[in-house]
Amino acid sequence: MAKKINFRTAAILFCNPNNPTGAIFTKEDLFKLAELAWKKKIFVICDEVYKDFIYEGEDFFFSLAQIPDLRKMVIRVFSLSKIYAMTGWRIGFVHSDEENISEIVKVHDALVTCAPTVSQYAAIAALDFANKEAKEFCRQYQERRDLICGYLDELSEVFSYQKPNSSYFVFPKIISKSKQGKANSWNFATDLLNKARVAVVPGIAFGPSGEKHIRLSFGRDKKDIHEAMKRIKNYFASL
Amino acid sequence: MAKKINFRTAAILFCNPNNPTGAIFTKEDLFKLAELAWKKKIFVICDEVYKDFIYEGEDFFFSLAQIPDLRKMVIRVFSLSKIYAMTGWRIGFVHSDEENISEIVKVHDALVTCAPTVSQYAAIAALDFANKEAKEFCRQYQERRDLICGYLDELSEVFSYQKPNSSYFVFPKIISKSKQGKANSWNFATDLLNKARVAVVPGIAFGPSGEKHIRLSFGRDKKDIHEAMKRIKNYFASL
Repeated sequence: MAKKINFRTAAILFCNPNNPTGAIFTKEDLFKLAELAWKKKIFVICDEVYKDFIYEGEDFFFSLAQIPDLRKMVIRVFSLSKIYAMTGWRIGFVHSDEENISEIVKVHDALVTCAPTVSQYAAIAALDFANKEAKEFCRQYQERRDLICGYLDELSEVFSYQKPNSSYFVFPKIISKSKQGKANSWNFATDLLNKARVAVVPGIAFGPSGEKHIRLSFGRDKKDIHEAMKRIKNYFASL
Repeated sequence: MAKKINFRTAAILFCNPNNPTGAIFTKEDLFKLAELAWKKKIFVICDEVYKDFIYEGEDFFFSLAQIPDLRKMVIRVFSLSKIYAMTGWRIGFVHSDEENISEIVKVHDALVTCAPTVSQYAAIAALDFANKEAKEFCRQYQERRDLICGYLDELSEVFSYQKPNSSYFVFPKIISKSKQGKANSWNFATDLLNKARVAVVPGIAFGPSGEKHIRLSFGRDKKDIHEAMKRIKNYFASL
């Protein structure tokens, strides 16, 4: 990352917990990132939209915004679309030092004026009263994660993967020896869509290091996950 | 306007009916504008957010989007904030040739994804069912316009103005012989706020040609308009 920073770099933007891998960054890695940004005098923008979907080791999650001395350089963004399932309400928040916020407001005001009033009230209600529902929501996603990972274990000749500890995505690498495995992720995703009727995101959509991977979402209900994974199994069985 | 166009100019943006003057552009003026844009190969962006607030001569209002041959270069924008009083719902629409829209969507998607679902449904209801309410709304604004103009007529030593035929603004020129009249619009607006407790927008906010003017809104109810205009009268009487 240090090598990629040049005189035009204004900020490091990253997503923790991560989309598409579901990984959570270690405190040590985050400190290294902060040190780099500090030296280069650039901002760190932390997208923490999946912070409430953590399945094991909740203590593991750490935000650089927890260090008061770093707050002038850390901009934390959050959305109510995920854990509160409020996607259609188009609302989130940004958290940073007052000085940064007053600069952000200038752009925000010119682009969108403000979030809708009705969404602001809905967001207040969610933040104040939906803690219990959010926990239950997280628990159900954990079950769905275990379900989809069970299928991936059965497909160990085809996919290798790291069990996601957060988010509702798993990002397996395609290791199949068939020609589908050698194909790029775009072609593989298209073939899977056409033949198995299952939609996945090709890893290349997340940059060159995402190539040879696909992103599977376990955001849908268990019935859909069973159906999709059976179709993927059949797809490989019929190759 | 022709003189202001250079190689970096991408579009002419104008507001018709106009904010802050409440004026409606003539068909002839609009054709000249279109001809200019056509020659220079630039877009015309027409903000028509006040098109349903027209008090006399509704036939007078004309949109360049009515000419099919011009649609490739005309981008019409509209908001539900004004005539449907849906400001807090943050919704509007853009109307142009399909080819332009597909380019606009690229930016729109990256910046805001979409308007809130709830606002989209509210907008459909407003457009489908609120025609009667909108007409009544417009009629009430006409009464408020006549009320505020009556006061301005009484203050003809202080303000000269053109009766607005649309919108809920009037944009009088300050012709007072007192030092307040000679002051710039920013200082005048500040003095009026401090001494008479009436908030107006200084004309300079609309560019150099707005200097020496103030924008008065008659969006509030009649009681408030009476009170505000009495305070302005007292302010000038006490100078």
